[in-house]
Amino acid sequence: MSSPAPEIRGELELVRRLRTILTAAGQHAPDGPGLARVAFGDDMAALDAADPGLLWTVDMLMDGVDFDSRTHPWRAIGRKAMAASLSDCAAMAAAPLAALCAVSLQDALAMDDALDLVRGAHECGLRFGCPIVGGDTNSWDAPTVISISIAARVPPGLHPVPRDGACPGDRIWLTGPVGGSLLGRHMTFEPRIAAALEISRHLGPHAMIDISDGLALDLGRILEASGCGAVLDAAALDAAIHPDAVRLAARDGRSLRDHALHDGEDFELIVVAPADVASSVGDRLNLLPLGQIVASPGLVLRDAAGACTPIPVRGWEHFR
Amino acid sequence: MSSPAPEIRGELELVRRLRTILTAAGQHAPDGPGLARVAFGDDMAALDAADPGLLWTVDMLMDGVDFDSRTHPWRAIGRKAMAASLSDCAAMAAAPLAALCAVSLQDALAMDDALDLVRGAHECGLRFGCPIVGGDTNSWDAPTVISISIAARVPPGLHPVPRDGACPGDRIWLTGPVGGSLLGRHMTFEPRIAAALEISRHLGPHAMIDISDGLALDLGRILEASGCGAVLDAAALDAAIHPDAVRLAARDGRSLRDHALHDGEDFELIVVAPADVASSVGDRLNLLPLGQIVASPGLVLRDAAGACTPIPVRGWEHFR
Repeated sequence: MSSPAPEIRGELELVRRLRTILTAAGQHAPDGPGLARVAFGDDMAALDAADPGLLWTVDMLMDGVDFDSRTHPWRAIGRKAMAASLSDCAAMAAAPLAALCAVSLQDALAMDDALDLVRGAHECGLRFGCPIVGGDTNSWDAPTVISISIAARVPPGLHPVPRDGACPGDRIWLTGPVGGSLLGRHMTFEPRIAAALEISRHLGPHAMIDISDGLALDLGRILEASGCGAVLDAAALDAAIHPDAVRLAARDGRSLRDHALHDGEDFELIVVAPADVASSVGDRLNLLPLGQIVASPGLVLRDAAGACTPIPVRGWEHFR
Repeated sequence: MSSPAPEIRGELELVRRLRTILTAAGQHAPDGPGLARVAFGDDMAALDAADPGLLWTVDMLMDGVDFDSRTHPWRAIGRKAMAASLSDCAAMAAAPLAALCAVSLQDALAMDDALDLVRGAHECGLRFGCPIVGGDTNSWDAPTVISISIAARVPPGLHPVPRDGACPGDRIWLTGPVGGSLLGRHMTFEPRIAAALEISRHLGPHAMIDISDGLALDLGRILEASGCGAVLDAAALDAAIHPDAVRLAARDGRSLRDHALHDGEDFELIVVAPADVASSVGDRLNLLPLGQIVASPGLVLRDAAGACTPIPVRGWEHFR
């Protein structure tokens, strides 16, 4: 019953329309304190109105899109699948509890490779206190798919850090340098859970997100959800460029800033915190300053002379 | 890094080997009361050792395997995806709380079809108090995949009903007739959540499972997990054959009993309960008696004269 047109125009549009369907009056979850506290479309969702600190998330990775089984070992692929969902926990400042793993394995996949896939995910989860406790196994004649669901708990005394809490005047930080992840880090990144819990405890962040689709696009998600804009400092951005971005730029001719702003799968956190927190706290947590939140919508880059250039909000988006 | 051989030989073998990896000494979940109560590989898993009544499950459905987008409307496909995970909740006698929905949409899929897929899942969930509260959207050039995770809570005063609690002497019941689901019920079945909660409250069941892969194979899972066998009464089995099985048998020449025992996706519950519960309770709950649990391993069919015939434990199994 597939209709011929119109084709899906973009993930952002699809998600907007899904939000309308899933939060329609009388159709949404009970307005309990838990389910109300986390907005639909955030990195994680509340699963039980009676327990607002309990969150969960899911990510789905596909062969040929998120990994390439011709070049990546299956154990590394499983690791990435788990780490991507753990990164969602970091983005909310929640400590993971357990994971479910659902797979559709390509028919020709060897048993040992299938076991390596799940083993890689489980080993990565265990390092973060997040064992695989169940799942669903399937096979078919299309490329392999792996989906990891994680349940997590916000530590006592802390709150889930949403996307939609950024306020004009807030500072923007990064947990690490960005750009060029395609050279390898997109398979080997460390979910920033420990850093996220420290940030939540000491910086009182208003908003956080992990960079899966690019700094500009993911910061754009915070800005859209919060109804504000941001000014990035050009010198600060230059200081947050990963050496991989430099190597990749030398190959492909794109600018360093372009790589830093638009490469996906860095999985560093964008942290938006009140300006009255001393910079020394950010320094102690090894955060990289990036700029600040402003009232007027849009994302701009300000150079040393004060001149502002708009930054296009694009990056990795499904259905482009 | 796909190895050429040996190919995956069967889902049961894969799951056995995964269990070994995921429950290895020092590698498994903390032995809290929650995670210890539900065995690995049951219909749902515990997600938080501090909250043993909270369970979760995941199912993944693929186009061309679990549904056919050339003939099934996308709304019905979404409905089935949700209902399959809700059926896992029924199998544990848990009341669903909320769902996550992850999809990999085939590139050419129209926006309206993608929305219908999620709408169908959400509408079905809402009827059982289980809204979709989050998820992950992706697209690719392979067939569409949808995965639904559900969190559920065992009602106060009740316990999760496992697979591994069957005891010799227990009676075996069904929540409804089986066989021939391919004629349409595999897309339209009702998850037996209300029945499961009544059964849990009034029958004190030792074991339950929903029939996804066939009565014989899924009952076999209870028997293997519980370390016992079962004798099915031939007359009782004949009384539990669905009219669809009769219609399908007339077409394909397979016997009625073969359809009843081995057709998958009935999504009725197999209930194993102590023999001292009066038959009148089962009657009142509209359960169909099927036979009893015995100490000796294996599954056999006993006719009116007392002659026993072994039943092969087969059904729908991935990786055959």
